Amino acid sequence: RSPAESWSGLFNEISHKPLPPPAVSCVLNPFPSPCLPPCACFQLLKALTPEENSLCQHGLYFQDGQRRVDYVLTYPVKKPSAGRSSRQSTHLLTENAVARSLRRNQHLRHHPAQKARDSSSLLSSPAADVELGCPGETFGGQEDHKAFRREEFEGKLRDMGLELEKDEDTKVTGVGFVKIHAPWNVLCREAELMKLKMPTKKMYEVKQSSGVVEKISSLVSKVLEPLRPHVEEHHTKNIKHLSHTFSREKQHLFDLSDKDYFFDSKTRSSIVSVLKFTCDLLYEEWANYSVFYKYQPIGLVRKYFGEKIGLYFAWLGLYTQMLIPASLVGVIVFLYGCATVDDNIPSMEICHPKNNITMCPLCDRVCSYWKLSTACGTARASHLFDNPATVFFSIFMALWAAMFMEHWKRRQMRLNYEWDLTGFEDEEVSSDHPRAEYEFRVMQKSLSKDQKSKIGVTFAIVFGVILYRISTKAALHMSSNPITRNHVQLTVKTTAAIINLVVILILDEVYGAVARWLTVLEVPKTDKSFEERLIFKTFILKFVNAFSPIIYIAFFRGRLVGRPGSYLYVFESYRMEECAHGGCLMELCIQLSITMLGKQLIQNNLFEIGIPKLKKLIRYIRSKQGAFQEEERQKKLQRYETDHFLEPFAGLTPEYMEMIIQFGFVTLFVASFPLAPLFALLNNIIEIRLDAKKFVTELRRPVAARAKDIGIWYNLLRGVAKVAVIINAFVISFTSDFIPRMVYQYMYSPDGSMHGFVNHTLSYFNVSHFQDGKEPMDPLHLGYHVEICRYKDYREPPWSSTPYEISKEFWAVLAVRLAFVIVFQNVVMLMSDIVDWLIPDIPKDISLQIHKEKILLVDLFMKEEQGKIHILESSYRLSTGCKENCSRSDNNNSTAAHPRSGLHTNSTKSL
Amino acid sequence: RSPAESWSGLFNEISHKPLPPPAVSCVLNPFPSPCLPPCACFQLLKALTPEENSLCQHGLYFQDGQRRVDYVLTYPVKKPSAGRSSRQSTHLLTENAVARSLRRNQHLRHHPAQKARDSSSLLSSPAADVELGCPGETFGGQEDHKAFRREEFEGKLRDMGLELEKDEDTKVTGVGFVKIHAPWNVLCREAELMKLKMPTKKMYEVKQSSGVVEKISSLVSKVLEPLRPHVEEHHTKNIKHLSHTFSREKQHLFDLSDKDYFFDSKTRSSIVSVLKFTCDLLYEEWANYSVFYKYQPIGLVRKYFGEKIGLYFAWLGLYTQMLIPASLVGVIVFLYGCATVDDNIPSMEICHPKNNITMCPLCDRVCSYWKLSTACGTARASHLFDNPATVFFSIFMALWAAMFMEHWKRRQMRLNYEWDLTGFEDEEVSSDHPRAEYEFRVMQKSLSKDQKSKIGVTFAIVFGVILYRISTKAALHMSSNPITRNHVQLTVKTTAAIINLVVILILDEVYGAVARWLTVLEVPKTDKSFEERLIFKTFILKFVNAFSPIIYIAFFRGRLVGRPGSYLYVFESYRMEECAHGGCLMELCIQLSITMLGKQLIQNNLFEIGIPKLKKLIRYIRSKQGAFQEEERQKKLQRYETDHFLEPFAGLTPEYMEMIIQFGFVTLFVASFPLAPLFALLNNIIEIRLDAKKFVTELRRPVAARAKDIGIWYNLLRGVAKVAVIINAFVISFTSDFIPRMVYQYMYSPDGSMHGFVNHTLSYFNVSHFQDGKEPMDPLHLGYHVEICRYKDYREPPWSSTPYEISKEFWAVLAVRLAFVIVFQNVVMLMSDIVDWLIPDIPKDISLQIHKEKILLVDLFMKEEQGKIHILESSYRLSTGCKENCSRSDNNNSTAAHPRSGLHTNSTKSL
Repeated sequence: RSPAESWSGLFNEISHKPLPPPAVSCVLNPFPSPCLPPCACFQLLKALTPEENSLCQHGLYFQDGQRRVDYVLTYPVKKPSAGRSSRQSTHLLTENAVARSLRRNQHLRHHPAQKARDSSSLLSSPAADVELGCPGETFGGQEDHKAFRREEFEGKLRDMGLELEKDEDTKVTGVGFVKIHAPWNVLCREAELMKLKMPTKKMYEVKQSSGVVEKISSLVSKVLEPLRPHVEEHHTKNIKHLSHTFSREKQHLFDLSDKDYFFDSKTRSSIVSVLKFTCDLLYEEWANYSVFYKYQPIGLVRKYFGEKIGLYFAWLGLYTQMLIPASLVGVIVFLYGCATVDDNIPSMEICHPKNNITMCPLCDRVCSYWKLSTACGTARASHLFDNPATVFFSIFMALWAAMFMEHWKRRQMRLNYEWDLTGFEDEEVSSDHPRAEYEFRVMQKSLSKDQKSKIGVTFAIVFGVILYRISTKAALHMSSNPITRNHVQLTVKTTAAIINLVVILILDEVYGAVARWLTVLEVPKTDKSFEERLIFKTFILKFVNAFSPIIYIAFFRGRLVGRPGSYLYVFESYRMEECAHGGCLMELCIQLSITMLGKQLIQNNLFEIGIPKLKKLIRYIRSKQGAFQEEERQKKLQRYETDHFLEPFAGLTPEYMEMIIQFGFVTLFVASFPLAPLFALLNNIIEIRLDAKKFVTELRRPVAARAKDIGIWYNLLRGVAKVAVIINAFVISFTSDFIPRMVYQYMYSPDGSMHGFVNHTLSYFNVSHFQDGKEPMDPLHLGYHVEICRYKDYREPPWSSTPYEISKEFWAVLAVRLAFVIVFQNVVMLMSDIVDWLIPDIPKDISLQIHKEKILLVDLFMKEEQGKIHILESSYRLSTGCKENCSRSDNNNSTAAHPRSGLHTNSTKSL
Repeated sequence: RSPAESWSGLFNEISHKPLPPPAVSCVLNPFPSPCLPPCACFQLLKALTPEENSLCQHGLYFQDGQRRVDYVLTYPVKKPSAGRSSRQSTHLLTENAVARSLRRNQHLRHHPAQKARDSSSLLSSPAADVELGCPGETFGGQEDHKAFRREEFEGKLRDMGLELEKDEDTKVTGVGFVKIHAPWNVLCREAELMKLKMPTKKMYEVKQSSGVVEKISSLVSKVLEPLRPHVEEHHTKNIKHLSHTFSREKQHLFDLSDKDYFFDSKTRSSIVSVLKFTCDLLYEEWANYSVFYKYQPIGLVRKYFGEKIGLYFAWLGLYTQMLIPASLVGVIVFLYGCATVDDNIPSMEICHPKNNITMCPLCDRVCSYWKLSTACGTARASHLFDNPATVFFSIFMALWAAMFMEHWKRRQMRLNYEWDLTGFEDEEVSSDHPRAEYEFRVMQKSLSKDQKSKIGVTFAIVFGVILYRISTKAALHMSSNPITRNHVQLTVKTTAAIINLVVILILDEVYGAVARWLTVLEVPKTDKSFEERLIFKTFILKFVNAFSPIIYIAFFRGRLVGRPGSYLYVFESYRMEECAHGGCLMELCIQLSITMLGKQLIQNNLFEIGIPKLKKLIRYIRSKQGAFQEEERQKKLQRYETDHFLEPFAGLTPEYMEMIIQFGFVTLFVASFPLAPLFALLNNIIEIRLDAKKFVTELRRPVAARAKDIGIWYNLLRGVAKVAVIINAFVISFTSDFIPRMVYQYMYSPDGSMHGFVNHTLSYFNVSHFQDGKEPMDPLHLGYHVEICRYKDYREPPWSSTPYEISKEFWAVLAVRLAFVIVFQNVVMLMSDIVDWLIPDIPKDISLQIHKEKILLVDLFMKEEQGKIHILESSYRLSTGCKENCSRSDNNNSTAAHPRSGLHTNSTKSL
């Protein structure tokens, strides 16, 4: 990584986030480091001891105790060895205005092509220079150079109108702090330039529509009352401030009762209340497992963390909420399967003791003939996941996904309205700041090859797993004990699935790094496109990783087996895998549940809970060595010094990624695993609180970022939902036995029932047609001589004119299968489109209120206008009246009406 | 229709269109009525005679000759009989501000539920009252009442700050005119409220990127030079005014060099130049068939007619442009078909003289056996439209449609940028003014039934046409002359297609009315939703109307025929229609071309050119009766009086509708008719100039409406493009013989060639199996005794164990057909998505420029800021400096530095 890259990267990161001007994050994180009980500071505040109070606010203000600290910059000082290591965790938080002005300068003064190089010198900030500077220079020279660049940078900040205070004499060795305060006029200017919407003085009441609907909704809200978090957010719900784009000329229209907190009043009710209450409230009512059944206090989350994180939690909340009906229906479908398992004629026929069908051996030589009735258990289990209800369920889930998308659009719109983001256009949408390393474009060439090869790794590994399974299975089948063999099946399937899971988990981490590496190679022009490409690549790789074994089982296993007497061989010795009697659906189900549960349990619980706990433990053991002095010192640390030790915020990408892969499990193969939504729901209930805890107590407070939507993630969700339709169509028609059963029932069954279905799906094989050396070694295994054995396929019998050719039934079933795919795909897509079309994107009440607000605003301006005219008119009347008076007084030489002229006449008189 | 409806409807119509404040349309239409040569006035202007000049500007100004007429209202006066008739053509043009203020008042003062009723009284304008008033009142009372309401309305306009001038003494009997002038301060206020973007003083140069790309583009532009209209639009292309939302407080930033034309300078360079040049230019360089090969002067069109109409012509232009490559490829595909017709083995086999296949009779009793070789011509013709190239072409066209959508998005974005609409949000998008008749909701019930029954009419008629064809065909087949019979086929097909066309054309008009009636019944809440629902319904009905016969031919004809010996009968006597040998593709093609060409020729040329010409002729004959006095009077008429006689503008819906149906023809069945794009292209080249002529000379100048996009039409286009993919998939796999040929070649052909294909597709029938009374009357027609005849189907031969059953080949072909549909649909959809994803919605140069403009604007504001501070500082320094001087002068009692104090001291001294 070039130095220019590391620095312009940092600045870009900040320019990405059009912050509501300062006051958003008064310190890196208002929470103490994780070693202290979280929120301890605020528990003290409740006790209201003045000294403790001042202790708490320690570090929140400049030395004068007046000016608030809006941002903190850190840089390494003196010790070069410490500098290098601390650079890693140095988190440069600079104010939006700074980034803006710098960007502005760049664009105006420099040719774009030179920008990257120039930016490194322009934006040079102390920490950057650790790696800048000539390697030949002496250490002192390097330090001087850095100090000079630092000064230059700070000068630019001051030029912007910001006020700085340095604090090099900290208890944290090797780190210097620069505290930044943004004064009122800077805030105003930036608010105007950013077209921030601010509350005006005008308030209005949001009228609830009266009538039956209102009564019902109030009843519903009463019933849902215990689900609400104990946050006084919705107290003033009925009264809303009219908001309007801030403009200094129209300052008088805005509610400036408290200038110190005006710019907070929108993003958070006020910094004081945030510090006093928000933290406590969030900790108690949000980041707490005991409130798992409640709604999230999204408004408060957004006030504290900004819109971007607020939207993530709102999305997660809606998703979890939407999973409730899905998992309910899923459980019902599963129970339906359980209830009807005994009425299922095909499995009854298989399990019937009189069933005397002799099956062909499952492997060459070592395996022998077997009785179909031994597959009874598998057949019964398959019915749980392969019954008509699953068809209904997968249609339901496709529509559910469409509904979810629509609901999210509406929720987003509602949040945009409530958070005064309507009309806010993401500044950087189309034209972002070019990234520094954009110029190293030459490397791009190697991309496509690399990516392909990487992706190839997944397939290689999946193939390896297949080979393992083939060989293990053959080995286990050699033991001729029928009881072992029955268990063998499950053992192999389960162990293989677990191996798959482990491989997936390891590759998941590898792929994250690979995606980043590939995107760096690709050299996208802007940071936004960098992020989007990275997300897209990571998503593709992780998705392929998670789903390729499942897709293999669903669509390729047992398809290319060949037939007895002419099996297909891999490497000339291994036969292709077959599915157990009853379709591959059962195995698909096992693979799905293990992958999904395993991913969730291990990635969430182990990685997200376990590792921080481990880190905490290590830190605790270490702090024991420093003993009490350390603890004492901790207490005396400035807030920003304590926060410096917290983990930096790494972005929402991993959180979203986890959820979108889960969404894939919930929708993609839902036809084969109706319990997926339930597992997802259970996981997410924990996930919300887990993430909340992480954000509140274990991470540095992230820079609040404005966002109108969840960006690329919405597109990815849509993509998954689209793919889900076609995959479910194929699962139902090809993986499950649904279509063959239908075809048998309506085309071939002599009495219109399912009786005889099992027999119909089995073809005949004359054992004398075995290839030499492939026939079973123990032909009398079943105790009698076998002449004709059966195998699952639609082929002509040995006595037909074209023995072992694909039969007419095969083509008929295939045609029906394909027709089902076409019908299913198009019907579901059409229904999704209709759902999309029927549900308006903007909720009706919101659209009405937006309209009303517009009218009120126009009214406000018109009144102001008329007021002005009134004043002008009256002053005009006054002046003209005066003139008349004056002329009269001049004529009559009587008492003066005009003070000045009076003064004059008086003075003239008196003298 | 209630009176309230007719009135609030009018006002809503105007409030729909957030106009750039006045000055847009200085008169109803600056062109003379169609009886005079268009633009004659301006040809006079060129001669520059002062009297003629004043004649031209006659009616453009108030009586004082100073204030411009911005809008004209008309109302009927005195003669009630004339009033009623003129009401029809009364076109109330009111200014945006008026509509806005009225809307505002309504919302503030009235409860929404009462709005509809109140608006009628509030908005009551003279012309409305023709139908208002109590029927029992005397005529005079009615007139008085109307006059009172008129006064009230005019009072409201004056309250808004508008200036009015009445002109009741007109030469047009029975019509009074109210001319409206909007003064500067009203314009400013409205511009601010509407957040109009206006050019600031700041200009900047749009830099062309240098290098190879630039050279190529300049070369391309040189080559394309003759295609550019001779409009000096792009002279100043390299210099662009920075635009910013207008605000009175920041007036000094804007380019107010000419206040009279400031608000025009964006929408049109200036009203004078528009009157002097725009008209002439548009007439010469746009509404002129001789410039058909040139680009349209879209900027000028938009300046003159507003954004909405500008967007329509831009869209039409892009569509026509995009049709060029499509028709090129289409022609190539067609030529490929022509070139390979002699190499086509199946048709060669059919035409081969030694071919001796005896076919089963095509109808019962009267028809006899026939030789396959007589179908030679049809088979050869079919090959023109049924060859592998058509598969490629339909994939190409699906991608073409996706490309077109993407290009339109980009073009729209570019136009938005050039027209300073970026950031403009359609005010009425979500929350429109409720329509008056919304309250008559009760009628809604009858909707769904009605619509279904109407749609049913189409199917009934299609069915009727089918019956006609069956019976005609049977009748014609009875003539046993083989030569006649060959011609018969074509005759029947063609006449049936023409009958279909006539029915379609008649129903088209009927359906327009039906859709309007249904939408009125439905009572949508707002005007916007009314318009959208109306469009949607009209579209559905017209679409079904145009395409149902085609869909019948493509997918249902010849499918349900049955087989010899067991035909399917309708009404127990008519056999279902069969397709000619070689598939139904040929007939589909005939139907398509006749419908498409006929629709275009008749609807465009007859309706759009012929009828206006007819009207003109009638008017001319009538004016002959009034002789020369009439002509003299015409010349003396005020401009707005002449314009009053023009047709009012009826909206863009019919124009868009025509084009979208055409888009359907171009994309939906393109697999069977590759020449469709060519026909569409030829039509559109005329259509553009035709529409242009209509807009420039034959319609009243429409109220300029702002619009960012083409609204619902884009969604309809997308819908058609989506449906096109699946329809083409089915046409290729089911209507054409493509799949059976492929299956034969790769599965059944003994030598991998197409030899034997014809024989393979024909099944055998033993003539002894004919039902009684169905066998041909003349079995020896061919001159020999027939035992086995052949028919086109995949069935078992009579000698198999299951005679006449559907054979394995049938299922295999069906499966492949369905598989092809799945693959085609998903591949094309995926490719479309990729096209969508690869082409960015915002062109790169535009996004860069938007970014640059933002920076420049911020810079402008910052400079202004600094300027202010500078002035403040210097004045501060001056005053402090002065104070020092003063105190010094006071101390020394020397010459006064301060004028006032000097005055004082002087006066003190002198006395």
